[in-house]
Amino acid sequence: MTEEKKILLTELEGYILEKDAEKAAEFLAQLQAADIAEVLEELVSEELQQWLLSLLDDETAALVLNEVDSELGLKLLGQLNQQKATEILEEMSFDNAADLLGELSDHEQTHYLNLLEKEDRKEVRELLTYPADTAGGIMTTEYVSIRETFTTAQAIEILRKIAPDAETIYYVFVVNQRNQLVGVISLRELIIASPTTLIKDIMHHKVVSVPVDMDQEEVARIVSKYDFLAVPVIDHHQTLLGIVTVDDVIDVIHEEVTEDIFRLAGAPGEEEDDEDTSFWKIVTSLKARLPWLLVTMLGGLISGQILSRFSDQINAVVALAFFIPLLTGMGGNVGTQSSTVTVRGIATGQIKGKNAWKIVCREALVGLMIGAVLGIVVGIIASWWQNKPMLGVVVGLAMMGNMLTAATMGAFVPLTFRKMGIDPAVASAPFISTAIDITGLLIYSTLATVLIVYLL
Amino acid sequence: MTEEKKILLTELEGYILEKDAEKAAEFLAQLQAADIAEVLEELVSEELQQWLLSLLDDETAALVLNEVDSELGLKLLGQLNQQKATEILEEMSFDNAADLLGELSDHEQTHYLNLLEKEDRKEVRELLTYPADTAGGIMTTEYVSIRETFTTAQAIEILRKIAPDAETIYYVFVVNQRNQLVGVISLRELIIASPTTLIKDIMHHKVVSVPVDMDQEEVARIVSKYDFLAVPVIDHHQTLLGIVTVDDVIDVIHEEVTEDIFRLAGAPGEEEDDEDTSFWKIVTSLKARLPWLLVTMLGGLISGQILSRFSDQINAVVALAFFIPLLTGMGGNVGTQSSTVTVRGIATGQIKGKNAWKIVCREALVGLMIGAVLGIVVGIIASWWQNKPMLGVVVGLAMMGNMLTAATMGAFVPLTFRKMGIDPAVASAPFISTAIDITGLLIYSTLATVLIVYLL
Repeated sequence: MTEEKKILLTELEGYILEKDAEKAAEFLAQLQAADIAEVLEELVSEELQQWLLSLLDDETAALVLNEVDSELGLKLLGQLNQQKATEILEEMSFDNAADLLGELSDHEQTHYLNLLEKEDRKEVRELLTYPADTAGGIMTTEYVSIRETFTTAQAIEILRKIAPDAETIYYVFVVNQRNQLVGVISLRELIIASPTTLIKDIMHHKVVSVPVDMDQEEVARIVSKYDFLAVPVIDHHQTLLGIVTVDDVIDVIHEEVTEDIFRLAGAPGEEEDDEDTSFWKIVTSLKARLPWLLVTMLGGLISGQILSRFSDQINAVVALAFFIPLLTGMGGNVGTQSSTVTVRGIATGQIKGKNAWKIVCREALVGLMIGAVLGIVVGIIASWWQNKPMLGVVVGLAMMGNMLTAATMGAFVPLTFRKMGIDPAVASAPFISTAIDITGLLIYSTLATVLIVYLL
Repeated sequence: MTEEKKILLTELEGYILEKDAEKAAEFLAQLQAADIAEVLEELVSEELQQWLLSLLDDETAALVLNEVDSELGLKLLGQLNQQKATEILEEMSFDNAADLLGELSDHEQTHYLNLLEKEDRKEVRELLTYPADTAGGIMTTEYVSIRETFTTAQAIEILRKIAPDAETIYYVFVVNQRNQLVGVISLRELIIASPTTLIKDIMHHKVVSVPVDMDQEEVARIVSKYDFLAVPVIDHHQTLLGIVTVDDVIDVIHEEVTEDIFRLAGAPGEEEDDEDTSFWKIVTSLKARLPWLLVTMLGGLISGQILSRFSDQINAVVALAFFIPLLTGMGGNVGTQSSTVTVRGIATGQIKGKNAWKIVCREALVGLMIGAVLGIVVGIIASWWQNKPMLGVVVGLAMMGNMLTAATMGAFVPLTFRKMGIDPAVASAPFISTAIDITGLLIYSTLATVLIVYLL
């Protein structure tokens, strides 16, 4: 939020706190729904939130309720009298109404659905049947479709009538008698064409469309790739079911990115509601984190096992233990860097089949160079600090080997996972650093065992 | 890419390898520019790439060269004869031409600019003056603007003429005599309005716009928030300079996400060209990674220092050393999970000022619960394995304290950074896990020192 906007919003909050309805309403009329939603979320009491909502016309209220957090939106809707709630719901686009009602229990859902007009109820109910993270779950049924036998003038006339209700009128979809998608034309092309031209003569026959059960991430990728404003959604009979618009695609991208980042860190995969601190939420969050914690714990115990076989050496030269956190910490760091760069490269499509091995070689080389430089530095520090030159040699060589394997594994593991058809993001920080801890300690203990006579 | 598409592309590659121009051209006519770009990138030889490009008309070639990797695009453009290169450049939108030429040296840039017509050259040159990651750097000057005194019929007539060259005609910007932005109207509204209505009577006076020097990430946030198809870019005199369209915003989101993910992992901040394995690239990559490596190294040495003060205890009970990797590994894991959830919550706006402390408390509670459960498990394993009950108590208690501080720090550090005006993503994995290693070892060594008499 810009400074300027903050000042404006402070002014509005003044009116709201004073309950100056006239000035507040005047002020709200100048704001976009997304801004009103921000103000609504910032208000401290439910009473003030309700009062603000009452100042809005139904259409704006519908837009605002879609912009706020869905929990708050449902709460505010539930507090309204039935008539007002119905009016606001009727003003929502079908996909937004379905998104909101989708968060409710079946019983409450039915209650709200029954408030809607019969036609609208049917549309919203149908949208509710698709899984939320598929093309069907994010599409809207408010598109514009015409027959190929129309002229452009007729098509524009239809657009004029439908425009207020359609989600976008900039793409017009052409269907046959059985509502199968046969073409597409943009409003831009309709406007340029002469009024008597037939749609079928200027429409595009090859239409990029997505099946209703396609994963939302894939839908987002297609819309991004072709720079579309919307993409049609079809069933397996080519019947046009709805469209996914670019604004919903942006929401999907934000959502999927959060998921990817969390997966890379081995953190809860589902987007959490960060305000909810209830006990149940915490338990859910624990359940999501637990798998990686157990992997790490198992790895830690294996590391302990390796060290226990190496206890004679530690007993003889206790300083060997001092460098364990340094070696595991550095290995984890370098490995995480390499795996993150690799996983992201796969996700953005920069790393493809044919250059995969180049990446592993590059990371190996990077690891070797880091290892050579830092191995010498750490080796010198170790031998000077403990006054044992051979200890420096062992620590330095272990660092070098550790950096090389850490960087190589960081690139190799995600690429191998992808080749095996496993999501490379599973090669996330906890997994990689645990694996690297184990190999790093194996290298260190082996080196120390071989060179122990020189250490004493 | 879908299976179906792969089969189609294999067919095309067949025609290309056989150099069957007719069939290949026929096939290409059915593809979108983004698909042709994919094929072009997959082709093995430059000769085949040039041949494919020669089959395309100038307009399609321009679109395709914008979709491929910019390095490849410039290489292919450079190999064309001057006339063809000029024709293709002329077909590009100004912002795409500027993006492409922006990658060249000044000398080469001038060469290509001189090929363009005078008017176009001026526009492209101007776009080249804005930093690439600002509103000016991603905007295009091919927008539609009209005067407020026009009627809707006149406005639509203008759109008809401009449509083929404009980046979007769905938003029409209204300017005064000095080209200052005074309003906006959508094509949707123009179509609904009666033909004689004056623009000034139906346009929106409050226009959300962005200053030319605004960071591209902020521009993307505004377009996402308001669900715009484009946003106008102005200078500090309110003069309309260009527009940023939603397709460019999606590219920005992808770019910024990559940056955020890399920063979280302490990996190179700049998006790397993953195919380039040249020595210089590796050195650049090393330079980007080095700061976190040094932080980790310093942390590792401090950890070693802590352990060295604790060497009598390790000498007495060598098994104490076996649990070091377990404790540091688990602490790093939990801390990274907490910091990732927190940093992402800040980025998406879910974590705001007023609920920040709730998050720290929640994470502390999560850490305490994880610590309690895993502390008991690890404690039992340790006492059974080493047959020393008190060792189990020390390891278990250390685990509990470590999990509590790790989760709390993971949430606390990024929130504090934000409050201090530092990018919270700096509280990235390497920093957090190094800090947690140190505190974890302090807890462990203190506990072991206090309870040493019972350990012997």
